[in-house]
Amino acid sequence: MNYAIVFRLLGYVLMIEGALLLLPAAASLVYGEWMVLGVFLLTAAVSAGIGYALHTIKPRSKVFYMREGFAATSLCWVFISVMGAVPFVLTGCIPNPVDALFETVSGFTTTGASILPGVEDLPKGILFWRSFTHWIGGMGVLVFLLSLLPLTGGSHVNLMKAESPGPQVDKLVPKVQSTAKILYGIYFALTMLELVFLLIGRMPLFEALLTAFGTAGTGGFGFRNDSFGSFSPYIQWVVTIFMILFGVNFNAYFLLLMRKFRRAAASEEVRGYFVVIAVAVGIITANIYSMYNSFGEALRQAAFQVGSIITTTGFSSCDFDLWPTLSKEILVMLMFIGACAGSTGGGMKVSRLLILAKTLAKELKTALHPQVVAPARMDGKLLNHETIRTTNVFVAAYIFIFAGSFFLISLNGFDMVTNFTAVAATLNNIGPGLVKVGPMQNFGCFADPAKLVLIFDMLAGRLEIFPMLVLFMPDTWRKF
Amino acid sequence: MNYAIVFRLLGYVLMIEGALLLLPAAASLVYGEWMVLGVFLLTAAVSAGIGYALHTIKPRSKVFYMREGFAATSLCWVFISVMGAVPFVLTGCIPNPVDALFETVSGFTTTGASILPGVEDLPKGILFWRSFTHWIGGMGVLVFLLSLLPLTGGSHVNLMKAESPGPQVDKLVPKVQSTAKILYGIYFALTMLELVFLLIGRMPLFEALLTAFGTAGTGGFGFRNDSFGSFSPYIQWVVTIFMILFGVNFNAYFLLLMRKFRRAAASEEVRGYFVVIAVAVGIITANIYSMYNSFGEALRQAAFQVGSIITTTGFSSCDFDLWPTLSKEILVMLMFIGACAGSTGGGMKVSRLLILAKTLAKELKTALHPQVVAPARMDGKLLNHETIRTTNVFVAAYIFIFAGSFFLISLNGFDMVTNFTAVAATLNNIGPGLVKVGPMQNFGCFADPAKLVLIFDMLAGRLEIFPMLVLFMPDTWRKF
Repeated sequence: MNYAIVFRLLGYVLMIEGALLLLPAAASLVYGEWMVLGVFLLTAAVSAGIGYALHTIKPRSKVFYMREGFAATSLCWVFISVMGAVPFVLTGCIPNPVDALFETVSGFTTTGASILPGVEDLPKGILFWRSFTHWIGGMGVLVFLLSLLPLTGGSHVNLMKAESPGPQVDKLVPKVQSTAKILYGIYFALTMLELVFLLIGRMPLFEALLTAFGTAGTGGFGFRNDSFGSFSPYIQWVVTIFMILFGVNFNAYFLLLMRKFRRAAASEEVRGYFVVIAVAVGIITANIYSMYNSFGEALRQAAFQVGSIITTTGFSSCDFDLWPTLSKEILVMLMFIGACAGSTGGGMKVSRLLILAKTLAKELKTALHPQVVAPARMDGKLLNHETIRTTNVFVAAYIFIFAGSFFLISLNGFDMVTNFTAVAATLNNIGPGLVKVGPMQNFGCFADPAKLVLIFDMLAGRLEIFPMLVLFMPDTWRKF
Repeated sequence: MNYAIVFRLLGYVLMIEGALLLLPAAASLVYGEWMVLGVFLLTAAVSAGIGYALHTIKPRSKVFYMREGFAATSLCWVFISVMGAVPFVLTGCIPNPVDALFETVSGFTTTGASILPGVEDLPKGILFWRSFTHWIGGMGVLVFLLSLLPLTGGSHVNLMKAESPGPQVDKLVPKVQSTAKILYGIYFALTMLELVFLLIGRMPLFEALLTAFGTAGTGGFGFRNDSFGSFSPYIQWVVTIFMILFGVNFNAYFLLLMRKFRRAAASEEVRGYFVVIAVAVGIITANIYSMYNSFGEALRQAAFQVGSIITTTGFSSCDFDLWPTLSKEILVMLMFIGACAGSTGGGMKVSRLLILAKTLAKELKTALHPQVVAPARMDGKLLNHETIRTTNVFVAAYIFIFAGSFFLISLNGFDMVTNFTAVAATLNNIGPGLVKVGPMQNFGCFADPAKLVLIFDMLAGRLEIFPMLVLFMPDTWRKF
């Protein structure tokens, strides 16, 4: 591996984190939380300092292949998480370092699983940082870096490929930097739009900011103990709609901006995504109707939870662990489906499942008509062999990691639904699961070793497995 | 589809079933169950009669492609199941036809899931038929047919491919008929061997026969209400060892017969299979040690259940639903792994998982060393593209069917562990699941529509999905 170039990138990322830590510091300042302010400033200084030192390393070679891309991506995510956990420990909000790391990884990976039993007493600065990590992690810190730096070498698209979710990562425009800028531009604009709608609903600015961060990154950290249960129906609907919007492939927004409306509407993935949402909301509404006072309320609860789970946000407006099995099973299945590729959401992604379904259909057709050549297509284009292969390998890796984690955390002795949904909720970056990790519970009940497994799962889920696996291969660490 | 040729095959199979029904008739005769005897003779006559009528259809064309192979296979299995269910209904042992079909499909597919709360009061003839269906279904009724008939046309290997489990079905010898004969020869000899060992353990002949049928087909129907809980440790060990032996790829036995010991021992699948068994038994023994009186007993219980689940037999020697979560989760994971390809067992098969793991490793290597070509190998041979592709498509189909069934049976309103393990136990042809379908419970609690879904799953599991899916494609039914 080209260590120097990877360390240099780590340096840039830590400097950026140092700068970003000034925002929660500002929040602490506004609310007069002097101790917390000091902690954030100190952490920012340390982060920026280490980053500056690393960035001065001069690489002797410009080699930057997939290996460097994967290793840089996973190491960056590990480093920013460790650094981001420091304020939680130093302020005493989360004294156990493993817990603090869990909370920070959960933030950056936009999982939203928390080890905190209650959040209402946390200092404002800490609450701000917690939700802000979602916003940073949603679009990705490396994508942010790429938007700032005109990195030379040409192969930095590997970084974007490693950090952006989905089976195919296309540059929207020929230049990586411009693509990254456009993505962040759309992301920022949509976040602002949600903020405005929340403010119209008379949500206080601070809470509106945290809500917008959590929705935009499809994160899921709440700032009230009952998440969104006590908010007005208007606020719940705004959050529902924006959760769903942030789960759409950002390519579609780019096409809309380019006024290519027909192509945007023709995206099979986006269509599939909305169909799944509509069907799930329909069935759950009918299923839980008797539990609520009115059709409107049942629909709102169903839509909120469906939007929250399929986009892997993880906010909750009620304790869906009390719903009938049918509804709960639909939510569990949505956990695996996940949002669109190229969105801020997690899960396996709608497009991967479409690719699997299409290859299956093709295979059956070939069995019936061996003479006919009927290649699989998506959005009118041929699905190339490379995409199908990596999708299949992704599914295999996903299954193995799921089974391994399921086994390891069972050593903790909890019941099977808790274990299954805990892995599903972290590997898919959702947040809450069921039973002991249900929406009104938290992950604090697990022992530290189990938490470390779940931390790995969150990172593997966010980075779509391969970059994290590469870290465990001895070959990666060989100097070349 | 070439209807005539498919009907002709159905005819042969029904005639064979007519002949096979004479065995339970003989059992009824021995035990003087005259009414049951009459029912079996009547069913045998009807089956043979319909079979004879169908077999007289003269096909105008010899076309017999994959489509005909798939359709013939799935239709044969549906027909023999319907016919096989008749004695259960007519004798009044299982008055509800859906229940009777469930029981018969469970028998032929070697699942061993029962809707009967108790079996000790059943007539001997019915008990015999129930277990005998396992033996027939284990190696396959079409493979049996192929061993009898020198079918011309050359493409009848498609039938064997459709009915035999595993990602690759090789002919052991150039001729299909000879291959089928060798397979049935090994199968018969091993069954006899087990019978002898059971008789040495002073098991009555009738019970020994049923046990041998159930073990050989990796079926799982018991004839006592507590399955094997009340048998002696010797009997339990004999059953354990033979369950594991019937889960081995029969190619390995063929190689042993050919005195190619080194090649037999080199099989990566067989090695992997024994490693998984050893690891699972080790962990579970340690985990349940405190629940039993001695190390020996804990080991025996662990080995029995591991052997029973990984080979998808489904016998039980104790109520493993009472074991700690860790052990239960290991059993659930073994449900999915399954036995070796080319054995009588179900599940995803060890070789499929090996192929997935190998392609994953290859993909990671390629990411690290884009220049190096490192193709995936198994048993020293290159894994061909076709095998990898169908394995991947199998996994995709498996996931979709699993999710669909899980959703459909949740309409029944049971808890999630029941639903999940009910689908896992039927799709993998195991038998018992957990909670409401645990080893001391039965599938009678499900409503008829849910039972139909599970019947489909059992057939899809036994025939490895594609033949059953082909039945639902309109193209299949088009005359050519």
